[in-house]
Amino acid sequence: MSRTLPRFYCDDLASGILTESESAHAVKTMRLTVGSELELLDGKGIRLRAEIAGITNHCVQFIEIHRTHFERSGPALHIAISPPKSIDRFLFFVEKATELGITSITPLISQHSERSKLNVEKIRKTITASLKQSGNPFLPQLKDSLSFVDLVKNSRLPSARFIAHCREDGQKQALSALLQKLPELVVIIGPEGDFTQEEINLALENKFTPVSLSENVLRTETAGIAVCSIVLSTYSAL
Amino acid sequence: MSRTLPRFYCDDLASGILTESESAHAVKTMRLTVGSELELLDGKGIRLRAEIAGITNHCVQFIEIHRTHFERSGPALHIAISPPKSIDRFLFFVEKATELGITSITPLISQHSERSKLNVEKIRKTITASLKQSGNPFLPQLKDSLSFVDLVKNSRLPSARFIAHCREDGQKQALSALLQKLPELVVIIGPEGDFTQEEINLALENKFTPVSLSENVLRTETAGIAVCSIVLSTYSAL
Repeated sequence: MSRTLPRFYCDDLASGILTESESAHAVKTMRLTVGSELELLDGKGIRLRAEIAGITNHCVQFIEIHRTHFERSGPALHIAISPPKSIDRFLFFVEKATELGITSITPLISQHSERSKLNVEKIRKTITASLKQSGNPFLPQLKDSLSFVDLVKNSRLPSARFIAHCREDGQKQALSALLQKLPELVVIIGPEGDFTQEEINLALENKFTPVSLSENVLRTETAGIAVCSIVLSTYSAL
Repeated sequence: MSRTLPRFYCDDLASGILTESESAHAVKTMRLTVGSELELLDGKGIRLRAEIAGITNHCVQFIEIHRTHFERSGPALHIAISPPKSIDRFLFFVEKATELGITSITPLISQHSERSKLNVEKIRKTITASLKQSGNPFLPQLKDSLSFVDLVKNSRLPSARFIAHCREDGQKQALSALLQKLPELVVIIGPEGDFTQEEINLALENKFTPVSLSENVLRTETAGIAVCSIVLSTYSAL
């Protein structure tokens, strides 16, 4: 196995220091010391190999050894999703979506939503942990929760818009068949009780294409992970 | 919303009775009584609408109202996967793979495997629960654990064979680009520490094609769910 360096998140590489919590993780958990090598991700496409130069006021100071710039290889995938009742299931989606390289996540409040309040801090921690674990150079953006109406009527959405729902309407196509080489797309995913017919109609009026992901009924978080897999793996460059 | 009937698993529809545990779920949890309608899946492609005719010796007796036969629309997907240390992560994979319509799951013991013992009963329960939840008419088969060597050398494997690993070898292609209309395929997915070079070589000798799922490092269960999504959603008929 190739040796992998312990990885940390540092959104301001120019500062030359890690945050207190990342420093604590480096020093207390990973037992790194002055001279140890580590890898830093800024979440904006830069991966740094660095060395610990000092530890002052509980913060790790580092010096750069080598810098790698990444470009996004796939499309920018935005998912707006109704968080399920179980926060663990939502965090699981967030973790997987980050591993797979999602661009943004918007919690969606729709008529059958089972949860409108979210622990944003916990979600951000899950994103950062998954970023470090997977080595994804691009930090997904967690957007503010939006109502279904505000989301679908937003004129700044990308033109490739999809709505995944479970109703049988004879209009749905497989998402995988519609992808081609889209540079950016948004997919909205409903709650366990699905979107209402009224919501689906409003989405269609706002140029959303109805898509299906499976013949079975997928849980919300499964639908979210499936969309990430289908969209982002199709484009993965090697 | 269309009204959905409570759903149960019954592998022997001809018997006209539910097992004791399914009966307990119907009577005690769902509070169904004589005359209640329910939906039964036999896991072999039949979905039955039925009515409770009686409850004797803690077992629900049912009579058929309507029968629907399903045919598999996608390919038969077999995944052999090294269970991660966390059993919850493995169960999450099992749940998602069942929702998405996997055909069989083989726990794989490879050189870097972190877990060789599994609670088979718990995995079976997860499969059945996910089958009922998703309405998937086909029960995935949980196969006995196999060593890496025994798996890759098995001459009865389908001819479409893929190995997902994280090593950079310049030979890997994106799985999604290789699918075409395969009727049956097997994908093997390694542990967190990845397959060894020796294992990869052995797989190549046994006609496995190396594939990549992402540019990031995916957790084992994420790789498994991504494979199910890519393979099974591409084929989903509507």
